[in-house]
Amino acid sequence: MSKHVLAQNQYGKAENRIVKITRQGNEGAWHEIRDLNVSVALRGEFRQVHLTGDNGNCLPTDTTKNTVYAFAKEHGIASPEAFAILLAKHFVHSQPVIHEAQIRVEEYAWDRISVPTRAEQHSFVRKGQEVRTAQVTHSGQTGQLQVISGLKDLTVMNSTNSEFHGFIKDKYTTLQEAYDRILATKVTARWAHSALTADAEDFDWDRSYKSARRHMLEAFAETYSYSLQQTLNAMAERVLDNCQSVNEVRLNLPNKHHFLVDLEPFGLKNDNEVYYAADRMYGLIEGTIHRDGVQPVIATSDWITA
Amino acid sequence: MSKHVLAQNQYGKAENRIVKITRQGNEGAWHEIRDLNVSVALRGEFRQVHLTGDNGNCLPTDTTKNTVYAFAKEHGIASPEAFAILLAKHFVHSQPVIHEAQIRVEEYAWDRISVPTRAEQHSFVRKGQEVRTAQVTHSGQTGQLQVISGLKDLTVMNSTNSEFHGFIKDKYTTLQEAYDRILATKVTARWAHSALTADAEDFDWDRSYKSARRHMLEAFAETYSYSLQQTLNAMAERVLDNCQSVNEVRLNLPNKHHFLVDLEPFGLKNDNEVYYAADRMYGLIEGTIHRDGVQPVIATSDWITA
Amino acid sequence: MSKHVLAQNQYGKAENRIVKITRQGNEGAWHEIRDLNVSVALRGEFRQVHLTGDNGNCLPTDTTKNTVYAFAKEHGIASPEAFAILLAKHFVHSQPVIHEAQIRVEEYAWDRISVPTRAEQHSFVRKGQEVRTAQVTHSGQTGQLQVISGLKDLTVMNSTNSEFHGFIKDKYTTLQEAYDRILATKVTARWAHSALTADAEDFDWDRSYKSARRHMLEAFAETYSYSLQQTLNAMAERVLDNCQSVNEVRLNLPNKHHFLVDLEPFGLKNDNEVYYAADRMYGLIEGTIHRDGVQPVIATSDWITA
Amino acid sequence: MSKHVLAQNQYGKAENRIVKITRQGNEGAWHEIRDLNVSVALRGEFRQVHLTGDNGNCLPTDTTKNTVYAFAKEHGIASPEAFAILLAKHFVHSQPVIHEAQIRVEEYAWDRISVPTRAEQHSFVRKGQEVRTAQVTHSGQTGQLQVISGLKDLTVMNSTNSEFHGFIKDKYTTLQEAYDRILATKVTARWAHSALTADAEDFDWDRSYKSARRHMLEAFAETYSYSLQQTLNAMAERVLDNCQSVNEVRLNLPNKHHFLVDLEPFGLKNDNEVYYAADRMYGLIEGTIHRDGVQPVIATSDWITA
Repeated sequence: MSKHVLAQNQYGKAENRIVKITRQGNEGAWHEIRDLNVSVALRGEFRQVHLTGDNGNCLPTDTTKNTVYAFAKEHGIASPEAFAILLAKHFVHSQPVIHEAQIRVEEYAWDRISVPTRAEQHSFVRKGQEVRTAQVTHSGQTGQLQVISGLKDLTVMNSTNSEFHGFIKDKYTTLQEAYDRILATKVTARWAHSALTADAEDFDWDRSYKSARRHMLEAFAETYSYSLQQTLNAMAERVLDNCQSVNEVRLNLPNKHHFLVDLEPFGLKNDNEVYYAADRMYGLIEGTIHRDGVQPVIATSDWITA
Repeated sequence: MSKHVLAQNQYGKAENRIVKITRQGNEGAWHEIRDLNVSVALRGEFRQVHLTGDNGNCLPTDTTKNTVYAFAKEHGIASPEAFAILLAKHFVHSQPVIHEAQIRVEEYAWDRISVPTRAEQHSFVRKGQEVRTAQVTHSGQTGQLQVISGLKDLTVMNSTNSEFHGFIKDKYTTLQEAYDRILATKVTARWAHSALTADAEDFDWDRSYKSARRHMLEAFAETYSYSLQQTLNAMAERVLDNCQSVNEVRLNLPNKHHFLVDLEPFGLKNDNEVYYAADRMYGLIEGTIHRDGVQPVIATSDWITA
Repeated sequence: MSKHVLAQNQYGKAENRIVKITRQGNEGAWHEIRDLNVSVALRGEFRQVHLTGDNGNCLPTDTTKNTVYAFAKEHGIASPEAFAILLAKHFVHSQPVIHEAQIRVEEYAWDRISVPTRAEQHSFVRKGQEVRTAQVTHSGQTGQLQVISGLKDLTVMNSTNSEFHGFIKDKYTTLQEAYDRILATKVTARWAHSALTADAEDFDWDRSYKSARRHMLEAFAETYSYSLQQTLNAMAERVLDNCQSVNEVRLNLPNKHHFLVDLEPFGLKNDNEVYYAADRMYGLIEGTIHRDGVQPVIATSDWITA
Repeated sequence: MSKHVLAQNQYGKAENRIVKITRQGNEGAWHEIRDLNVSVALRGEFRQVHLTGDNGNCLPTDTTKNTVYAFAKEHGIASPEAFAILLAKHFVHSQPVIHEAQIRVEEYAWDRISVPTRAEQHSFVRKGQEVRTAQVTHSGQTGQLQVISGLKDLTVMNSTNSEFHGFIKDKYTTLQEAYDRILATKVTARWAHSALTADAEDFDWDRSYKSARRHMLEAFAETYSYSLQQTLNAMAERVLDNCQSVNEVRLNLPNKHHFLVDLEPFGLKNDNEVYYAADRMYGLIEGTIHRDGVQPVIATSDWITA
């Protein structure tokens, strides 16, 4: 009957929103918070679940949700990566039918609201800048542990030191060459760590994150740009040069166009001062840079020629 | 024919996204940016536009857009409020058929990306916290100038010092009394300035904004809360007490529920540590507080009994 | 102490998502569904809740949520309006401290998935066109019952029969006159019913909704337009002319600009064929039309001169 | 210097929104519209663009945008797939440095607004149900043409005939077995066509789309479900059984949970009538089914063990 093949499949509970409070100091008056969105995906021997609805091999998505909350209590949340590693290992090692688990985490950062007159610290304002991301995949069969850190929604702008010219002109080209333009983008970045790092129990994921983020920002600011591709490459290389644990960086950079407004009809000269910030359409520049000798692992778009 | 009445009506170009660069210092190497979203609404004698399509009294929305961009060049953008005042006055005073203009502005804040080795400053990262808002309404007939400042999307949390009990119990009440809960909300605030302030040409709107924002945050952090209504009142009173120019504050505070997860089925005690952050449904608390003797002007929801 | 005044305030549970299944026919095999998003706002004597955190007058928002779900079982959901009327009356009449209640409802429509071979009917696909809205406000003090029906997110387009010219030209005007353009908008409409209708227990709200929706669409399609204002007026008048229960219509019509793409650089003539559909900025046209002698009640933007 | 490797990279203009009007019949009074969102991604020899900012091999994203609009005029838009095939071939064949092009299209469907009294047909209302998708990838080196059709945002519900039980119970399991539940999901589907079909110039893509969509909906409605996985498999198999051109189907099915509300505290029995429709968290079920002997090509999440 089955002339059809069940290929890649996975399931789990997505977007479990969890806030974890940790109390420290005198009478627990100093609060720390971690605010995460955790998604679970399980892969394994789920053939009968699909073909006959026999759920004997199916750990409910509801159980995967409960596990996330219980683990936060039992093990705490040292970092998005460390928490995801714990969860991924648990699912693979506790159920033989689960061959691989992938945990995706988003973290929302908070600042303290400073209250000069008070010793207790339990008031926070959401930072609201980038969202930190982490993805951990663990295979029970190979024992492989893959950790991809990242961020999204980090919007940056250089108001000068960007040019674009010397490009191909075909019959559909009307773009003028630019010798001073705004360069702005909303960064989505992912970086894969070496296997050694992923397996190290005492690796400082928070410090690593801060370092990668800072080097990307500095490379963006310091690069005199002739194309967004060049800036992308510079940002990725800077991370590889400065973050030893990182083997591979993939960036997704929408070119957030800022068009100089033509003010001449009103007798005004627009000396790179007044811009219209456009939403759509936008250039979209994507690329992976990795260390020599390393096999890239971060997903790209569908790609025929490999 | 016309047994129907054309009542309140208005039109204009909405969401004009504008970025303005100002160069300062040695060779203009120090850049300042303002990043706004400006909406124009015009009110006046537009009867024929509606009834017959005679556009003799219609200043095109496209023209209102052009005016926004040209004014940024001609007058600069000292602050959202100052820029909106200029625009509102222009529309009302330049076209007799326009009796009233309302300008709404959103501002997106940017931080500098610090590059230690560099004198030039033209690199920015979007702050991404709250959006600052301003609304200016100017009537040509009364000469009145109404300025409402505000913010939105400022998410705050107290991880303790919040209780809720002693409430009405009716036959549909199942809520347990709470003696220690998370209190979190996403603040939308609007505050109206006195006429004197609105008309003062040298008023420091940026400083006023920072002050109102700080006092609201501090009041949120310092209030031991028995209801979100009480916190709302404290936040508004704090602004009125500390910001002389402000006559009225309206707050819209969704209660972002954080539910304590029941970990007992797993043999764990959840001592106010692990929370599920819910999206919907949510409590929604709204209120206006104003100085005695002042007529409130900030729009509320439809309200029958006035 | 209180030199400040607590003015308009309200609270309640917002966005209670509810799906109600009704079984009919042979062994209940014919299912009907209503899919609503219900928001509750209560107004009344809540001074102490704000000033001291004494919640003795506070019916918890959680209770208002429970009431929504319990009422769906007890009374069914005949229509968004009928359900909202029941809820509004309940809150006002069951708690003396609640002087006014406002219930807002969104309804999401579903079509059946037709399965020719089957008698049972329990499979649905979400229609996904406009969202139907209803707002009911009931005052215990005046006994007044105000019902405002509406819709949002209904996107319409005329690919011809729209012009725009003869408008004011000032120094900032560059717009060319247009004699054949696309006219497209995403309709938000609200219409208020007469008190007689609101109080009638057997009024057919579903039929009324379908009629108002149809007449607006037909007026949009049949009006040869010289301005979006004129189309707005025609749509509103058509509803007033054909829906006896409606006293007032307010429309909010963003002008979804479709710009003719200049293809001349490529040696092509664009004979009103290829358009760029823009997101922002957009014209925004708003207006209220009501029957003569009726007091308009639908909220507009802040408005100084009344 | 370059110890780093530039791996997969691509660029192009994303989200070109285009509306194309075609006039037919007597004096062109019968209008047809296609409303698309077209994204272009180019792959090829772009090393120097990244490493040195030499743009000699870079066809500007602005040019790719112009090409989309010009092609709509020159060739018309027979279907999303046919239009994407034309564009992909053009980019690969006109520029030797471009080795592969991927075109992604979203289509928004419109219904006519019927005006009984009128012969002309130029009034439309956006259907607003699912978004149709197409992705075409063409490699100049292999000559391969890969066409993946699809849809997203199609929300469906069975109000009965769904069970879930017999699953694994571990220490974190609290879920009760369910013998009658609502099954609802928002379908994202993609299906890959055989090479033969992709190359056929006269293939009817619109008819193929309607057929695949209908068979998925019918399979959803007709399957008595013991798990969402089983329903997923049934939907995919139905398409493979009925659509000869399709080799592979991938479905992404969030389990839109509808929780039965506990009405017992209010003395009411909830006989599968009143549900709370939850937003987050949600189960997420994904899977690929393909014909035997076919190599799957549709992208999945990052996957270690292949």
